[in-house]
Amino acid sequence: MRKEVVKNGDHLGVKRADLPTPCLLLDRDQLDCNLRNMQKIVASHGKQLRAHAKTHKCSRLAARQIACGAVGICAAKASEARGLIAAGIRGVLLTSPAITAYAQQLVVECAEIDPGFAVTLDDLGNADGLAAKFASRNRRLRCLLDVDANFGRTGIPLTNFRAFAEAAICIPGLEIVGVQAYAGHVQHIADFAERREVNRRASDVGVRAFEILKELGVNQPIFSVGGTGSHMFDVNRPEVTEIQAGSYALMDAEYLAISSAESRLCFDDFPPALTLLTTVVSANQPAFVTVDAGLKALYRDGATPIVVEPGLQYDWFGDEFGKISGDPASLPRLGEQLSLVVSHCDPTVNLFDQFFVIEDGVVVDVWPIDLRGCSQ
Amino acid sequence: MRKEVVKNGDHLGVKRADLPTPCLLLDRDQLDCNLRNMQKIVASHGKQLRAHAKTHKCSRLAARQIACGAVGICAAKASEARGLIAAGIRGVLLTSPAITAYAQQLVVECAEIDPGFAVTLDDLGNADGLAAKFASRNRRLRCLLDVDANFGRTGIPLTNFRAFAEAAICIPGLEIVGVQAYAGHVQHIADFAERREVNRRASDVGVRAFEILKELGVNQPIFSVGGTGSHMFDVNRPEVTEIQAGSYALMDAEYLAISSAESRLCFDDFPPALTLLTTVVSANQPAFVTVDAGLKALYRDGATPIVVEPGLQYDWFGDEFGKISGDPASLPRLGEQLSLVVSHCDPTVNLFDQFFVIEDGVVVDVWPIDLRGCSQ
Repeated sequence: MRKEVVKNGDHLGVKRADLPTPCLLLDRDQLDCNLRNMQKIVASHGKQLRAHAKTHKCSRLAARQIACGAVGICAAKASEARGLIAAGIRGVLLTSPAITAYAQQLVVECAEIDPGFAVTLDDLGNADGLAAKFASRNRRLRCLLDVDANFGRTGIPLTNFRAFAEAAICIPGLEIVGVQAYAGHVQHIADFAERREVNRRASDVGVRAFEILKELGVNQPIFSVGGTGSHMFDVNRPEVTEIQAGSYALMDAEYLAISSAESRLCFDDFPPALTLLTTVVSANQPAFVTVDAGLKALYRDGATPIVVEPGLQYDWFGDEFGKISGDPASLPRLGEQLSLVVSHCDPTVNLFDQFFVIEDGVVVDVWPIDLRGCSQ
Repeated sequence: MRKEVVKNGDHLGVKRADLPTPCLLLDRDQLDCNLRNMQKIVASHGKQLRAHAKTHKCSRLAARQIACGAVGICAAKASEARGLIAAGIRGVLLTSPAITAYAQQLVVECAEIDPGFAVTLDDLGNADGLAAKFASRNRRLRCLLDVDANFGRTGIPLTNFRAFAEAAICIPGLEIVGVQAYAGHVQHIADFAERREVNRRASDVGVRAFEILKELGVNQPIFSVGGTGSHMFDVNRPEVTEIQAGSYALMDAEYLAISSAESRLCFDDFPPALTLLTTVVSANQPAFVTVDAGLKALYRDGATPIVVEPGLQYDWFGDEFGKISGDPASLPRLGEQLSLVVSHCDPTVNLFDQFFVIEDGVVVDVWPIDLRGCSQ
């Protein structure tokens, strides 16, 4: 099909200047540095890393995280988990409930292939439904109980946790192996001390759930928490066993916008490895030029993209275009390329089919974003 | 590849209730009604419709617009145009400048296949560059001159238009066939009278450019304008020859949010044909439930999605989830499906690989969103 030829042509050895824009660039050295840095931070605190693929949607990148020492990979949706496992990734944790018949069928397939596969539960009816698919099989479905860490999006309220856990442990076909306490509301709190405090309260909930599982006889429960914005606190919590951060690999303007000195210090370990390359396509205005990356290439969320070239500002300019403003004397000219740190990496990556992996301004690899669109 | 099996499986005859969510539904009858209504409005004013594919990214849908009487299809980017033409669509107008080497190569390919293909120009250097690719061929590239209709995003300033047109007409390899005067800033102005007035001023610019082309000897120039928000004014402008509206086919909450009585009257011809189907995946809170459609399934832009089921409100809840609030007694239960009118149709469609075409609650067709991701 023509589109595939256009979009997945062989770009190996192509110079940055000759790439079709808009497109996503991955700086290979920076990416490897970020992967190693997070692995080092987590391991030096005696924790494990199960990096989240919802950020990068790329099984090649996931494999690199595993190669760096991650014990597995997290997936946000069943189809994302299924895609990772199809690509050979093992130790996949599905961090959202599997509710639809379609998602549950994928869960069965995932568990059949990946012995380390686990799901998260926050509803006993759902637990029964999943268990029924495993009761007739000669295996159990590994499950983390998802406790609501004051976020309220998914998760079992702590007040119900003991009763839930007692019931879940008794369901044939399920093996309760730990707790998930994801605090999504914490990750982007700008004030460092406030973020630490809100995260502490969230972790307290997780710790209590973790203790309940131990009291109920679960042996060495997994305790999975954290994101890029809270990992610096989570690794210091003795009970935590693993971190499910994702954005650290690529980074974005939303995290860089958290500019407190302490945050900067933490995020210094993770400079952006991802940039968006765009081209000036119209230059008839005195105070700005128009580039070929708009809403469909830079997801409008979280923060304004950062123009890497100094003295220039990006703003969205409709679905297909962006506006680059700056000192009129230093505005780029028609046809010139610019690099941007993206607003919010996760949904922006989900707009593209590939990463161009770059070294010294040349494409050294092309990684399919093979899990793009896997929202089911 | 596993992902393709998962995502493009045969869903013909599948009931709505059994579809994997989140997914996009197209109501076949409503879509056909919308296509016929716009065609009728445009034709009854003696104009032609060249519907914009940037909204739906689907060559099957484009073919249906042609079958309803559209003279061609507009494309926002060169790769989108190339994809449409590869799928058999003819009369494609590329509404953005083709600046990169990649885009220009696609322009050459488009012009070779589609005798009705045309590009838009707003820079003489770009015009020369494109012309050079056609000078050695036995044909000319059809071009509309893009005049800046007070929008400032792309386009030739009116003050330069005569000089630009005089120069462009003399460039061998180019055939100047008309003017484009797209007023993107007009489409979503809430106040109807203000929208009409701002559009009138934009159209005045287009009319002046149109007259200049006639004065310079261009025979029966094309005068292409308009979107869904301005078509009701544009069809009444005598000089206008064609309308490039797109959203009317699918519609979205952003257009429905323009609630003046006059707008409602116009948009009554175009009820939403597109909805997003989502499932409740967590229901442990008293005042809301969590559904499986977040930023990656409902592009956050323009307006808040509208829940079709009465008494419920949607809000985004991170990349993967949405929050459905309402009267606690009438909140949907775990596993229930909801339909949403999407916030902004264009970038939302660009998140999915297919439309499930629905009639009486059953999938009667699956249309690939084959131009998804064609932002280059």
